[in-house]
Amino acid sequence: MEKPYVIGIDMGGTNTVFGIVDTRGNVISKSAVKTATHMDVNLYIDDIYVELIKLINTVGGIDKIKGIGVGAPNGNYYTGNIEFAPNLNWKGVIPFATLMADKFGIPTALTNDANAAAVGEMIYGAARGMKNFIMITLGTGVGSGIVIDGKIVYGHDGFAGELGHVISVRNNGRMCGCGRTGCLEAYASATGVARSAREILETSKKDSLLRNIPIEDITSKDVFDAAMEGDEVAKEIFIFTGKILGEAFADFVAFSAPEAIILFGGLSKAGDLILKPIVENMEKNLLNIWKGKVKVLFSELKEADAAVLGASALAWEL
Amino acid sequence: MEKPYVIGIDMGGTNTVFGIVDTRGNVISKSAVKTATHMDVNLYIDDIYVELIKLINTVGGIDKIKGIGVGAPNGNYYTGNIEFAPNLNWKGVIPFATLMADKFGIPTALTNDANAAAVGEMIYGAARGMKNFIMITLGTGVGSGIVIDGKIVYGHDGFAGELGHVISVRNNGRMCGCGRTGCLEAYASATGVARSAREILETSKKDSLLRNIPIEDITSKDVFDAAMEGDEVAKEIFIFTGKILGEAFADFVAFSAPEAIILFGGLSKAGDLILKPIVENMEKNLLNIWKGKVKVLFSELKEADAAVLGASALAWEL
Repeated sequence: MEKPYVIGIDMGGTNTVFGIVDTRGNVISKSAVKTATHMDVNLYIDDIYVELIKLINTVGGIDKIKGIGVGAPNGNYYTGNIEFAPNLNWKGVIPFATLMADKFGIPTALTNDANAAAVGEMIYGAARGMKNFIMITLGTGVGSGIVIDGKIVYGHDGFAGELGHVISVRNNGRMCGCGRTGCLEAYASATGVARSAREILETSKKDSLLRNIPIEDITSKDVFDAAMEGDEVAKEIFIFTGKILGEAFADFVAFSAPEAIILFGGLSKAGDLILKPIVENMEKNLLNIWKGKVKVLFSELKEADAAVLGASALAWEL
Repeated sequence: MEKPYVIGIDMGGTNTVFGIVDTRGNVISKSAVKTATHMDVNLYIDDIYVELIKLINTVGGIDKIKGIGVGAPNGNYYTGNIEFAPNLNWKGVIPFATLMADKFGIPTALTNDANAAAVGEMIYGAARGMKNFIMITLGTGVGSGIVIDGKIVYGHDGFAGELGHVISVRNNGRMCGCGRTGCLEAYASATGVARSAREILETSKKDSLLRNIPIEDITSKDVFDAAMEGDEVAKEIFIFTGKILGEAFADFVAFSAPEAIILFGGLSKAGDLILKPIVENMEKNLLNIWKGKVKVLFSELKEADAAVLGASALAWEL
């Protein structure tokens, strides 16, 4: 008998979500563990195992599972390794697919978390029917999945599509988790937005609701909430973030001329607050041939589902 | 009988080179006309016709020609049009493939000149055996042909790969022919190098051989010649140009993770003068996962042949 289920795992810098998916792309059960609390990857896998085996048992045990697909930061499709991920505790090269396959006794494939989200979006979401688009994930970091001619771009070594690490600010840029300065991710991630808030509050005397929060505790969610209440400083932060993103998007378009750029992850919940300055600044910076032609869309999938579904799609190919 | 020849045409901003190519990829005869002197595209085509028909007659006439392949700035593979090319005299949308097909009475295909060069390099040059590389053409402008998984990237609309128009200098950048400011092309093209020379000579008192040339007449060739004689200002100009290119290349690698970036066109003749600062600055700006892994190579084809051969390859598919 054919094995009727696969497992999709979406590893983020903060949380890891996983689910059991059937042949029709239904996420039939789902659970999660913390990523960031584990300094040892083996203990992290133990944690996943404890939670996941419960789900697996509800569908008839491990014999019903064809394989595991994982979307992970700096995940390499070719090798199954997580290599030098700046937003994870585990440094160096982690043979994650092999570790998972050994633990569960079933084959495991792995890719970049943003690539997994892009596959999910292409099959089930806003990119249905598109052959050329770029998925930008705005979470703890900034990730990307690039689709050209209907296929994820992996490049020569499996690591293509690290658009969070193009340089947005060439001189005096912010430190990035990758060890360099000025990366898009240092500005346009959730943590980047919080850093922008601290910068503005510390270098101006403007009134703001954000001054009611201890400055080190401010999150992108706080900035969003303040902006929704009409706070000018908070709105300015989204305009600044959108400008950095829009400028970067114009360069991305010059590379692969996508039909659309699709926004995914925590920050995309800011809606028009972030979308309007992105589109305005992208249009201002586009070459004439692309003005008015490139869509910027929000993901149409529930946040965790896109990456879980996308990762699970890898497992069907095992 | 099968038609045994195709024509490849390489349209540059200054010159247009064309040749008759046989099934084995030999350029069996070749000629050229000026591009920049024609304000009317029809007169330009008349010029090509006069020269090309001589070559065609030496191989037995138009009946022996299967088709024409053209590499042109802003050439669109999908439509056969040249659209809004900043470095050509003809503005707007020029249905160049149709005009050529009508004039010669044989089918004509068209792509970006840099894409054509990349195809030539992949089949006959330094990119033989590579499936992921980027061709950068450093001529009157800066062009690019991006190869992913062994195929040219055309994108949603046929215009992908305009890497000369990513923004290298975000604030107070130089005016570019495209109407924007700060483009890579405004710094790293042959004209960009000449502009750098004028900037340095006008804003410093440093001695330089270049001061013997009327400042408006300085070309990138003059800068090269001076650098070869040990002129410090000229060497500084190549270091500056290489820095701008190396920084841009690090961003390109984050996009498609190529095995190599291949340099082509006039400026690449500067050899180590330009290669060393490119590699040094690319390495300095690469994410850790790519340090020491991406080759920067010079084209192995004679300058005109790569694009003529690449363009001719299009014609076999007609």
